[in-house]
Amino acid sequence: MPRKILLMYSTHRPDPKHLAALAALEDGISVVAADSETDALREAADAEIIVGHRYLRQCLPKARTLNWVQSTAGGVNHLPLQMLADNEIMLTRCTTPSMMIARHAHTLAWALLRNLPSAMRGEKICSNELRWLPQPKTALILGAGRIGCELAALLKQDGIEVWGVKRRPEQKPAFCDRVLGADQWMTLLPKVDLCFLCLPFLPETRLMMNASALNCLPDHAVVVNVGRGETMDEEALLDRLKDGRLGGAGLDVLKPDSPFIRKNELECLNLIVSPHIASHYLERGREIEQFVERQVSAYLRHESLENIVDLSEFAAD
Amino acid sequence: MPRKILLMYSTHRPDPKHLAALAALEDGISVVAADSETDALREAADAEIIVGHRYLRQCLPKARTLNWVQSTAGGVNHLPLQMLADNEIMLTRCTTPSMMIARHAHTLAWALLRNLPSAMRGEKICSNELRWLPQPKTALILGAGRIGCELAALLKQDGIEVWGVKRRPEQKPAFCDRVLGADQWMTLLPKVDLCFLCLPFLPETRLMMNASALNCLPDHAVVVNVGRGETMDEEALLDRLKDGRLGGAGLDVLKPDSPFIRKNELECLNLIVSPHIASHYLERGREIEQFVERQVSAYLRHESLENIVDLSEFAAD
Repeated sequence: MPRKILLMYSTHRPDPKHLAALAALEDGISVVAADSETDALREAADAEIIVGHRYLRQCLPKARTLNWVQSTAGGVNHLPLQMLADNEIMLTRCTTPSMMIARHAHTLAWALLRNLPSAMRGEKICSNELRWLPQPKTALILGAGRIGCELAALLKQDGIEVWGVKRRPEQKPAFCDRVLGADQWMTLLPKVDLCFLCLPFLPETRLMMNASALNCLPDHAVVVNVGRGETMDEEALLDRLKDGRLGGAGLDVLKPDSPFIRKNELECLNLIVSPHIASHYLERGREIEQFVERQVSAYLRHESLENIVDLSEFAAD
Repeated sequence: MPRKILLMYSTHRPDPKHLAALAALEDGISVVAADSETDALREAADAEIIVGHRYLRQCLPKARTLNWVQSTAGGVNHLPLQMLADNEIMLTRCTTPSMMIARHAHTLAWALLRNLPSAMRGEKICSNELRWLPQPKTALILGAGRIGCELAALLKQDGIEVWGVKRRPEQKPAFCDRVLGADQWMTLLPKVDLCFLCLPFLPETRLMMNASALNCLPDHAVVVNVGRGETMDEEALLDRLKDGRLGGAGLDVLKPDSPFIRKNELECLNLIVSPHIASHYLERGREIEQFVERQVSAYLRHESLENIVDLSEFAAD
């Protein structure tokens, strides 16, 4: 029986050249793209590799020969990690869009600093009547992982002092001037001009930016979230925005019952809500495919893979 | 009779500390701020220095002892240059806000590349339905003066190849990979991803970006104008935007009869019109005052001034 790669991308339809490039990596290897859940369930039964995670939860019980899942996502907390660990299936994630997510966060911050929401509402406002925020000198990045480090690099180019927050602060991320653990960052908030959330949604990050943290920020602070909506107390954020006790907010992610979905009360705020597009860009599909081709090539040659997810906490004792 | 400095800022009300700092530069020097045209006309009669240009045209016929005008503007083509030249009065301009104008242009371009106009209209659009533009590889800057050079530096940080256009291309501006004269840049247009206009309004720059130039740009090009509205054929620009033959447009300046003033036909475009705010920022007044204090100090000590405007073309034969 030939080795088999099953593709089920949620990000894009794979290019035929991509299928051909994967098939050329080893003689006789079978490469199949699933267009539907039915296809995926049938093809998963004897797949060794699954690329993409569109129907992963449904497929896993049937996937008896599965050894490795290459996700197209950077954050994988929504995937069936316990099931993967139980079946000793390796999981790798894809951080290819990290640079663009960082760029999106950076663009949101500068669009707010430059008062573009007022401009885009077409307000016939005199420039002297606009509220101009002080030029940012400091930025705090909650979640100094891949995205946070790319963002830190952009902010350093702007001459901004960057403080990163991560669970294991002993590993200092590149481009951060200081790195702080989860118990240390609150004291810095009164000095923060730009506050970025690039957090995964985990039990310990739920409402990490809560009302008391928001209340520690200066009134001119700009808050940007490109991680997960559940990490921010959005009701408290909206209250502060309405009261003029924040400089602005840029949200690419919202929690399911977000107050930022009700549009009519959001007029006149220095606010940009973008519809979860931070990771999107024209070249994304092709770049993900190129990353997948490198990973599959390394796998087939028994070389080490990038971005292996540590599932040890899910492993049976 | 004491030497006299007359202040008439159009940008802001001068800080009392600024008046005191100027008065402290020389024993017995008189520093007066005009709050009205009447004030200005009376005080101009025996002023040696005028700072700001708010009532300059009206004051000049009365200003018999005037030696130097320090404008607060970067572009001075709207000032009475002939009258200044006829009276052998020195004019200096102020380029303090250049960095922020460049930042505004850069922010407009990235806001368009990241599809923020659609996001800010609150369109509940699926990210796959958005038109994503290719990542920019090349930028053309028409008007590679102070603003253009600051902008070039920002674009180089993004890894973008930058081509500058200026009247005297033999002086290669910093950060530009290539510099072209006014007769050479048209051939490059088909390769331009980002096209920035940072031009003064002069007879030779009127409609410099005309319909045939716009038609040479690729359909994904983003056009940004932070110079003067009169340098762009805005009707042709709007036609191309409506036809989907441009990636987007960011306009901080409009010509007086601009088609971009009629709002109702502009929905759904990847367009940002900001109300001539590129040079505005919180710290501007203070930074202009600090520049003026350095200039006046240099003048009183007979040192060379920055940003002297060449009025030789207006001089009598």
